[in-house]
Order: sequence, then structure tokens, then C-alpha cells
Amino acid sequence: MLHDVGEFGLIDRVTSGRRQPASTLLGPGDDAAVVAAPDGRVVATTDVLVEGVHFRLDWSGPEDVGRKAAAANLADIAAMGAVPTSLLVALTCPPDTPVALLTALADGLWAEASVAGAGLVGGDVASSPTLTLAVSALGSLEGRLPVTRAGARPGDVVALAGRVGWAAAGLAVLQRGFRSPGSLVAAHRVPEPPYRAGPAAAVAGATAMIDVSDGLLADLGHVAVASGVAIDVRTRALDMPLRMGEAASALGVDPLSWLLTGGEDHALAATFPAHIELPAGWTAIGDARAGDPRVTVDGAPYEGSPGWDHFAPR
Amino acid sequence: MLHDVGEFGLIDRVTSGRRQPASTLLGPGDDAAVVAAPDGRVVATTDVLVEGVHFRLDWSGPEDVGRKAAAANLADIAAMGAVPTSLLVALTCPPDTPVALLTALADGLWAEASVAGAGLVGGDVASSPTLTLAVSALGSLEGRLPVTRAGARPGDVVALAGRVGWAAAGLAVLQRGFRSPGSLVAAHRVPEPPYRAGPAAAVAGATAMIDVSDGLLADLGHVAVASGVAIDVRTRALDMPLRMGEAASALGVDPLSWLLTGGEDHALAATFPAHIELPAGWTAIGDARAGDPRVTVDGAPYEGSPGWDHFAPR
Repeated sequence: MLHDVGEFGLIDRVTSGRRQPASTLLGPGDDAAVVAAPDGRVVATTDVLVEGVHFRLDWSGPEDVGRKAAAANLADIAAMGAVPTSLLVALTCPPDTPVALLTALADGLWAEASVAGAGLVGGDVASSPTLTLAVSALGSLEGRLPVTRAGARPGDVVALAGRVGWAAAGLAVLQRGFRSPGSLVAAHRVPEPPYRAGPAAAVAGATAMIDVSDGLLADLGHVAVASGVAIDVRTRALDMPLRMGEAASALGVDPLSWLLTGGEDHALAATFPAHIELPAGWTAIGDARAGDPRVTVDGAPYEGSPGWDHFAPR
Repeated sequence: MLHDVGEFGLIDRVTSGRRQPASTLLGPGDDAAVVAAPDGRVVATTDVLVEGVHFRLDWSGPEDVGRKAAAANLADIAAMGAVPTSLLVALTCPPDTPVALLTALADGLWAEASVAGAGLVGGDVASSPTLTLAVSALGSLEGRLPVTRAGARPGDVVALAGRVGWAAAGLAVLQRGFRSPGSLVAAHRVPEPPYRAGPAAAVAGATAMIDVSDGLLADLGHVAVASGVAIDVRTRALDMPLRMGEAASALGVDPLSWLLTGGEDHALAATFPAHIELPAGWTAIGDARAGDPRVTVDGAPYEGSPGWDHFAPR
């Protein structure tokens, strides 16, 4: 148990022998880390996962949870058009938490950070009744302007990189007591954000970009409001995997609701001027138009709930 | 209640109309913030406070808690010899948390950030049974090398900036059911780290530095181990305020234990070459010597517990 090794024992176990990227100028173990910010700016974000709210340890292994916590933050960095460099992790957990669980969490954080080219440079651990992982991520814009939510213009193409609906479908399957299809359940456990598609979109000239964490319609809604444009999504442009259709039939659910409102896959959505050839990994799924800031689906308002607001009345 | 305004309503209330420092290139509201890192490096740290562990809302007001959470992180930045630029905040709380409590927390975070010259540039909020504030801080080294824990050399002077023992004395007073002396209780509620003393020490040539958060002996112990030196502390060099002595008498406690082992005042301790004149705000309290890495008090081992290890067996 954590109680037996102590705070410093745990920190030692999760940091020693790990390989840091070149951007880590001073790694864990001091009051603070020092990270390279080559163009004189740093991109920074934070996201928190709570046991019982964002994950259940009977549905996801601790390494999965670590990967998911890292991915949620790394995807936010990519959504600015930046390349992730570092993670910081604040962990709270009960004193009787098994050390093996915590080192597995750390393994997951390190594994996902490595996928994105980042390192785990610092952290804190504190006693709490609730297991919580608050992760912050840093990144580099490599000399480019950040791609915000506010730059979409009428006439722009709306495009998507990565998967939508998979994590929501996997969660629905688990909530009904099933463990398959495996590909959907795996997508709930560990998202696969298209990290490289973020900087690629920035290089190609994307006008706006967002991490799809609350659901495609909800997140495109943020772009519509920030940019002052109307957005229309073409459902036939969205990829509906065979397994998702089958799972939806089995559960009696409209699979389109997963595609349009499912969060946590951490796809990236962006807008591009119409004349630009989309970079690899990006697919056109709609367009931005002059008009009141809202998102329509195949030209009409969407009838369901657009996505996730953590504390909204239900 | 938070439940009524929702996640986005809360974020709006705690970010709109605030004044950002010049280092905030892109503030809250997008996937990530962008912060200036003028010398091509960024200092980064994270710390988490948990209700019932680090604070009690019947002993501290929510604004106090926000200030304390910010101070713990800002002091870590100062302890590297850096100037704080930004905070990111991940908040977890029950859905029925009053909005006024959360905006007061945010007021405290902003107030303390302003004291140190930083801005609140990003955050996340999630539902949890436990109120938790995970704060990350960023800072700028202004072209200097970071002052780590590892640079102390035999012959160096050990010096202190800021207060020690006050927060521990204030907590002891509260734990016994008293509310005075007010100065000690206030120190428990809101620490007053000497932010400017960190960069000043770096400019003056400090060889090692640390934020005193676990207790003077425990934190000097980290310097001793990282630097491979022995450190001796002279107790007569430590300032014992009249109120602290009186409170110790009333509670039947040795006040020296507060000075030597009390954490959470976020003083800074540093080592300087003996020939250097200490910068303003710094007082010599001991010296570094060749020898096994350990900390002695007036030349002898200290008999009590040296300080705080969050999960250590007690």
C-alpha cells in the first residue's frame, strides 16, 4: 500500500529509469521542472479525471486510466496546432491504495506521453478519499500562431481527424453489462487522439481547431460561437464502423447519437479555407456558413442533446 | 449551486473581467492557453490541496483556500529562482457546491497570483465527492540557470527568507479549538511566501534553493541529500515571535518544533557562497559542511520528527 512506501517512495518508483525527451531540461525531483519552449511561448492546459465519474477501475485497468488522463491533455495541446512536450500530474488517492495500481497509472501516463513525444516532468501526490488524476500538459507551437476556436470563416470546410462515437459506444456496451465488441470497449478505455494531425492542420492553414471531448456537435458549437459562423455537418461523411452499427442495434440505440454527441475519443475538428487540400488524416464533414452561431445536421437542427456539460441540469 | 449554472457558467464567472499579465498571450476559453517563455524555457510545477487533508472550510474561508493553493505552487516557481507567470487550476467538487464558494476560491487564486505577478490562464472543473484543488504554475527564469537543490557546497552559508513555524502554530491553535493569536491562525490560512526573494537569491549567486513546505529540517534534508553535504542549523538565528512563544506555552508545546518542522509557510531556504552578501530579506541560519548528507541542529541530531511525508507510517 502507498501508506507503506510513503510519498517519496512512490515518486521514486514512478520517475526513476524513465526516458525523458530532449525538451525536458530538468526533470522530476526538484521544486519545479524546466522545459524547453524554443519559440519563446508555451502552450498549457489542464484536465482532471475522477474515479467513478470519468472511469471505473472494474471497467478500465489502471494503465488505461493513466493513458486516458494523459491523452485528454495531450489532445488539447494538439488542438492548438502544437506539439506536446511535457506532462505534470497531481494524484490524490486513499492511503491504502496498492502501490502496484499507482505504478500502473504512471506506466500509462508515460506510455501515452511517449506516443505524443512528451515526458512526465513533475507531480504531486496527496491523501484523499477519492482517486483523482489532475494532469497538465505543455507544448510547443514551433513558431506558428496558435489555432484557436475563433478563426472559422463562412465558406470554410469543416474537417475531422480521428474517431468519434467509439468511446461512447464502448461505454454504452459496458453500462449494459457487456464486454464486447472489444474494439469499442478498448476505445472507451484508451482513446487514440490523432496528435500529429493537429500541427499538420496548423501547417496546412487551418483557421480554427478544437479537441472533440464533449461531443462533435457540442464542440463544433464552441467553434461556431467563438467564430461567429453557422456550421452544418453532413452525416454521410461520418464513418460508421460495422461494429458500432451492430452494437447500436443490439442495444436499441441510434448510432448516429454516438457519432454526433459522444465525447472522449479526442478526435480533432478543424476548419480550412475551401481551396486548401486537406492534410493526411483529415476528412471533410461539413462547412461553415454566414449565419447565427449554431450547428445543424444535414441542414436541420439536431433533436437530441448535443453533448456533455459536467454540471448541467439533466 | 454549481449544478444550476453548469460547468461553462462557472468558467465564465471565474474568468471574465479579470486582468491578465503581459505574459498571458492567450488566456482561458480555448483548448489551451499560450504563455510567454521569453528565454526559451519554462519552469513548471504542480501541487494539490484536498479538503479535510490540507484545509477545512470551517477553519479557512474559500478565498483563503484559493490563496493557499496558489501560494504553494508560486513558491515552488520562486524556489527555482524564477518569476511566476501563470496558474492552471483543476477543481473537483460535489455538484451541490455553492457557486459563491467556488467564485471565492477563484478570487483567492487570482488574488495570490496577482501578488506574484501571474495570471490564471486555464482550468478544468469536474464532479467529485471530494473538493480538491490541483494547481499548476509556470514561470520564467529570465535567462538565468535554475537554482536546484543539488548545488550546495561545503562552506556555503545556509539562509532563510520568509517565515517558518507560523502556519504550524496556527494549525495547532485551531486544532485545540482556539481562534487566536490571530496572526498565527492567519498564517495557517494564507501563507505569505517571499516570492521576490527567489529570483533575488538566484541573481546574487545562490548555489541551491528549496521551498520550505514540509518543514525546515525536512526540506534542508532534501538539499543535503541532493547536494551531498551536511547542514547545520543554528536555532538562535531563527526568529521566534512573541505570540508563538506564548501560544506554545499555552498549548504545552516546544515552539522550536514549530520552527524546525512546521511546513506550509512556504519560506525559501537557500545556500550561498560564504563571501556573498545576502540579498535583502535573507538571513543566515546555518552552514553547509563536508560530511554525510544530514541536517543537524546546533551541532547535534534533532530528536523529533523532521517533517511531513504524506503517506509515511506514523
